[in-house]
Amino acid sequence: MTDTTNTSADLAEFEAEFAAQLALAPEAQDLLFRSARTANTFTDEPVSDEQLRAIYELIKYAPTAANSQPLRIVFLRSAEAKERLLPLLGEGNRAKTSAAPLVAILAADTDFHDELPKVFPHAGAAYREMYAGNDDARIGSARLSAALQVGYFILGVRAAGLAAGPMGGFDADAVSREFFPDGKHQALVIVNIGKPGENAYFERNPRLSFDEVASFI
Amino acid sequence: MTDTTNTSADLAEFEAEFAAQLALAPEAQDLLFRSARTANTFTDEPVSDEQLRAIYELIKYAPTAANSQPLRIVFLRSAEAKERLLPLLGEGNRAKTSAAPLVAILAADTDFHDELPKVFPHAGAAYREMYAGNDDARIGSARLSAALQVGYFILGVRAAGLAAGPMGGFDADAVSREFFPDGKHQALVIVNIGKPGENAYFERNPRLSFDEVASFI
Repeated sequence: MTDTTNTSADLAEFEAEFAAQLALAPEAQDLLFRSARTANTFTDEPVSDEQLRAIYELIKYAPTAANSQPLRIVFLRSAEAKERLLPLLGEGNRAKTSAAPLVAILAADTDFHDELPKVFPHAGAAYREMYAGNDDARIGSARLSAALQVGYFILGVRAAGLAAGPMGGFDADAVSREFFPDGKHQALVIVNIGKPGENAYFERNPRLSFDEVASFI
Repeated sequence: MTDTTNTSADLAEFEAEFAAQLALAPEAQDLLFRSARTANTFTDEPVSDEQLRAIYELIKYAPTAANSQPLRIVFLRSAEAKERLLPLLGEGNRAKTSAAPLVAILAADTDFHDELPKVFPHAGAAYREMYAGNDDARIGSARLSAALQVGYFILGVRAAGLAAGPMGGFDADAVSREFFPDGKHQALVIVNIGKPGENAYFERNPRLSFDEVASFI
């Protein structure tokens, strides 16, 4: 028997032993990681612009390649905006997205390189040239760094005391076309955001153990 | 003038206003986000296996597509192991990687789908079939979810009170071949880990403002 996650008391003890070794306070560990769950229902309570700005001011420090910060976000609040999104989602994701007070479309800006002279002062101009001449490298870098920022974003939502419901089940090309008509953005993940409603959570799925994912050499 | 990050006292006030709106305690915000910086030098103090396990037990809860958890990690400690890596890094990344007590190669397992029946019990077998028949979808999903997990990993290192130095400047194909000879893994990010040494930090680069990255519809 490995330490694959389940919901037993043995597990709680196993995790508590490791949790005590961290510098991060146990309540913060719970808020961001252990108690945080993908929410599938939401209350009507709105999410304010100020909350979203506070989340961004925290997560903007994510490290990215050449400080490129390629993550772009479109927040949907109105029923009209969500009506444009719902048909592009997998069927199982429609009802909960319709009910969420706020929906964030997280995308990679594949033209991030134009910002490099500003955000990476010591070498940004040279990087901009390199990326301008290599579409594959530029798009790959945009997707990688923006996906890393998505991890930060989800934790930022939880840091705000809100529930996040990240989803990958949607037609990414269609969402990119619909919400980023310049053709220079690629939608990566969509996140429902709000206060969790009734029966918001499914049973947690098992996690791989340390020994299944990590090795030492 | 927008609220683009700089190091002024005005900025501190601006950020404090938003920080107060979050549920996460201010010290935890500092530890994980605001005070956390990419370290470029390290002390000799070793990083223990127990610390790495504690980090993993925290970050294993990252949400991933179909709970696929495609992130795989190779930890390098010995000089011999690092000697295999150093020539594959950009020149500017070699000295600091050589000095780091621990180096983590973070990769996407593009054959993650074999684990789905275990980690996504209610539909894993069907997802496994779908991914088995579509290399592009499978590799794209592996890279996206694993990159999101990289974001969690970096924050996990900081939660352990350690400094992280994430790097994208390396020959990813060569690193994948050297450390994952099965041909089924793609190296994404390499992270130096340890206690920060002297002059560990460069000046922080500017961040994009909320209004530069986000919009509402």
